[in-house]
Amino acid sequence: MRLAGRDLVAIEDLDRPAIEEILEAARALVPAAEGGSVRHTLEGRLVAMAFFEPSTRTRLSFEAAVQRLGGRCLTIADPAATSLRKGETLSDTLRMISSYSDALILRHPNSGAARLAADLSDRPVINAGDGSHQHPTQTLTDLATIQEACGSLVGRRIVILGDLKYGRAVHSLIWALALFGNEMVLVSPPSLRLPESVRQRVRHLAGRIREEDDLATALADADILYVTRIQRERFPDETEYRRVAGSYRIDRATLEGARPELRVLHPLPRLGEIAPEVDPTPHALYFRQAFLGVPVRMALMQSILGGGA
Amino acid sequence: MRLAGRDLVAIEDLDRPAIEEILEAARALVPAAEGGSVRHTLEGRLVAMAFFEPSTRTRLSFEAAVQRLGGRCLTIADPAATSLRKGETLSDTLRMISSYSDALILRHPNSGAARLAADLSDRPVINAGDGSHQHPTQTLTDLATIQEACGSLVGRRIVILGDLKYGRAVHSLIWALALFGNEMVLVSPPSLRLPESVRQRVRHLAGRIREEDDLATALADADILYVTRIQRERFPDETEYRRVAGSYRIDRATLEGARPELRVLHPLPRLGEIAPEVDPTPHALYFRQAFLGVPVRMALMQSILGGGA
Amino acid sequence: MRLAGRDLVAIEDLDRPAIEEILEAARALVPAAEGGSVRHTLEGRLVAMAFFEPSTRTRLSFEAAVQRLGGRCLTIADPAATSLRKGETLSDTLRMISSYSDALILRHPNSGAARLAADLSDRPVINAGDGSHQHPTQTLTDLATIQEACGSLVGRRIVILGDLKYGRAVHSLIWALALFGNEMVLVSPPSLRLPESVRQRVRHLAGRIREEDDLATALADADILYVTRIQRERFPDETEYRRVAGSYRIDRATLEGARPELRVLHPLPRLGEIAPEVDPTPHALYFRQAFLGVPVRMALMQSILGGGA
Repeated sequence: MRLAGRDLVAIEDLDRPAIEEILEAARALVPAAEGGSVRHTLEGRLVAMAFFEPSTRTRLSFEAAVQRLGGRCLTIADPAATSLRKGETLSDTLRMISSYSDALILRHPNSGAARLAADLSDRPVINAGDGSHQHPTQTLTDLATIQEACGSLVGRRIVILGDLKYGRAVHSLIWALALFGNEMVLVSPPSLRLPESVRQRVRHLAGRIREEDDLATALADADILYVTRIQRERFPDETEYRRVAGSYRIDRATLEGARPELRVLHPLPRLGEIAPEVDPTPHALYFRQAFLGVPVRMALMQSILGGGA
Repeated sequence: MRLAGRDLVAIEDLDRPAIEEILEAARALVPAAEGGSVRHTLEGRLVAMAFFEPSTRTRLSFEAAVQRLGGRCLTIADPAATSLRKGETLSDTLRMISSYSDALILRHPNSGAARLAADLSDRPVINAGDGSHQHPTQTLTDLATIQEACGSLVGRRIVILGDLKYGRAVHSLIWALALFGNEMVLVSPPSLRLPESVRQRVRHLAGRIREEDDLATALADADILYVTRIQRERFPDETEYRRVAGSYRIDRATLEGARPELRVLHPLPRLGEIAPEVDPTPHALYFRQAFLGVPVRMALMQSILGGGA
Repeated sequence: MRLAGRDLVAIEDLDRPAIEEILEAARALVPAAEGGSVRHTLEGRLVAMAFFEPSTRTRLSFEAAVQRLGGRCLTIADPAATSLRKGETLSDTLRMISSYSDALILRHPNSGAARLAADLSDRPVINAGDGSHQHPTQTLTDLATIQEACGSLVGRRIVILGDLKYGRAVHSLIWALALFGNEMVLVSPPSLRLPESVRQRVRHLAGRIREEDDLATALADADILYVTRIQRERFPDETEYRRVAGSYRIDRATLEGARPELRVLHPLPRLGEIAPEVDPTPHALYFRQAFLGVPVRMALMQSILGGGA
């Protein structure tokens, strides 16, 4: 699969070799992402950052990625300041932004916005999160972090904790981990279990999925604990939210029985899901994970715009 | 007329050879605006984008223009975040921004703000829209689009439709089209006809102006249909607005009697003035027009800052 | 004191040779700050501008400084659009931004935010104002302006007028002027006199401080009149504010008895503290002072990031 000139709307748009190529390129770009070397791969390229929803972390990591490769950004960070307020359709706005740039990074609250953009634009479109639908560069970043931590992305035991029902970004992660043949142990409140439809989607892939009620048991021989963000706004009942949030706070005590090599990931921002006392332990990998979003996005932009992959 | 170092407050600041030079340069810059070649004309130049009013389209096209030429931007896109909120005068704010940069692109809700900036600053000031007063780079973009569509900017028959009374940007267009000797056919509701003062201003120029009540008659042998945006906020009576807006919706049926070569322009954003069903027809030129704002602004910046023209 | 890789949280972090080196470098960078030459010192460097409080002047002068040296910016200018709104801690946000960039410029409403950032980040952190605590690059700019005006920064007579109690940025200026052995004449309403604690902090330094009730007497043989901004929000009593603001308006009449060489500085934005009629006089140096913020910040960034000083 050649990535040059392609859109990336959903992680499922990529096959396994394409994902491997991106991750391998990302590894090689870590020193450049840390500022240790200057790249000119995107020199003269202009990438539009169309963020119709606040997302500082995703926007800045894309802007860092483009600029670390020598490219330039055209940024909309304040959706209130756009022509949409004047009643313009999203289609018209996207067509305009797309015609000013070489690629379009889109964040939008509505599911399907990235697909619409990809259909309208003759430039590559990268989905930086469209509502609760897809956030493929987050999944790529998660994979890169697991690979860096474990040395390989294949055959790992990965505990996934939290809201597996509404948190659809984690569905993409489960698909990708299944693609690479990992064993996933799902831990969630009964009301927030993985929907059967997602199980069906990954049934033909190499990975295995099982559920576990007890987190300590699940952690016993895990390589990775992936903690999802519990988003208050998804819960119709505030009381239920508080119970769930509280029951899944990871602290030093939680991790006592785990292997020393266990690494904890979280897409950030976190609220109370991981206690700050975990930060200085060797388990904490979520800040590294946040940083790895930069070389991963560099690798992706390079593959799509720079003639590589 | 040498453009290097000059301000551009109003389209009337330019003479015909200066406009022709900008349009010729813009034509040559189309491939660079499309990302096909890298320019370094503005390398090391810093251009301030002072947008005291939301205007994503104009801001992004200027930022694209500056960056496609290798220059850098200093951007104020959120007027609420400025010292103006602390009670600073506009003069003080403009003096500050101007001293930090090599040129100042200004958008401001008050008529005359660009003239004030030009008087205060010893750097070139370009008016990117000051209230309902002037928006000269829009006019240049309109001219470039007509020229590209018709092959020449002279002796064309151009229907201008909509609000010709309050929409003062169209007054600049009429002046410029008159300068190049075009025939303009004005179609508007009786209450929104072109003011006599504008007629007087263009009387000595080569162009001819006539009014026409029936759009179909006007379109019969027109080269261009220029549709203006009807701005609801200008109408004291909502009922009148709706009647006017409705009476001037361009759709496929409207264009049935027109020549196949007729091209439709609109400064965008559009509300209901042009139906989306027109978009895939060969008549639709408004998206191309939006794109041409980039090479036109590149040509202008190059002339003013880059030593050209 | 080597500046490479260091933080700048408070002006007192610098010793006299370090300040002198920055000011000397700033003088040499004035032509580059004016756009007369292109520098590549920060090529490939990415500097994060984290402005959690509106401050267009400071943000733009830092962005101009970084870009005039060939570096790139990652900008947060709208605090409302950050993950802080999602409940993320400031520590987590700062860690993320810091890991995406080579240095962090931080503006924050809370005193101590810059110290927190410096402790968290392994990249240099520069305080661009943290509440009423410190604003060291403003002090450096003030010093550069006095030095340019007087030829030297040593042994000058400097009148400091206004709110010397709450306006803590002026405390840093007083410290720095004392370090260089200047004579300071303080003029303020009785209720807004310099706190004894600040006097104690500068007692061991070479400068002298005295108070004067009558501005005309103070100005008689002064080199510099430094007018502070009187910030309404600091005054519990609106009536007292109006009396103070009114009693210290500098106009042409105020300056009649001063030496022709007297120069007036103000950190801007100003409200009514200096009448616009002063602007065209040779006394007015506040616009130059605003501009000098650019070469001063260039010199600082070059020392910290570019391998210099």
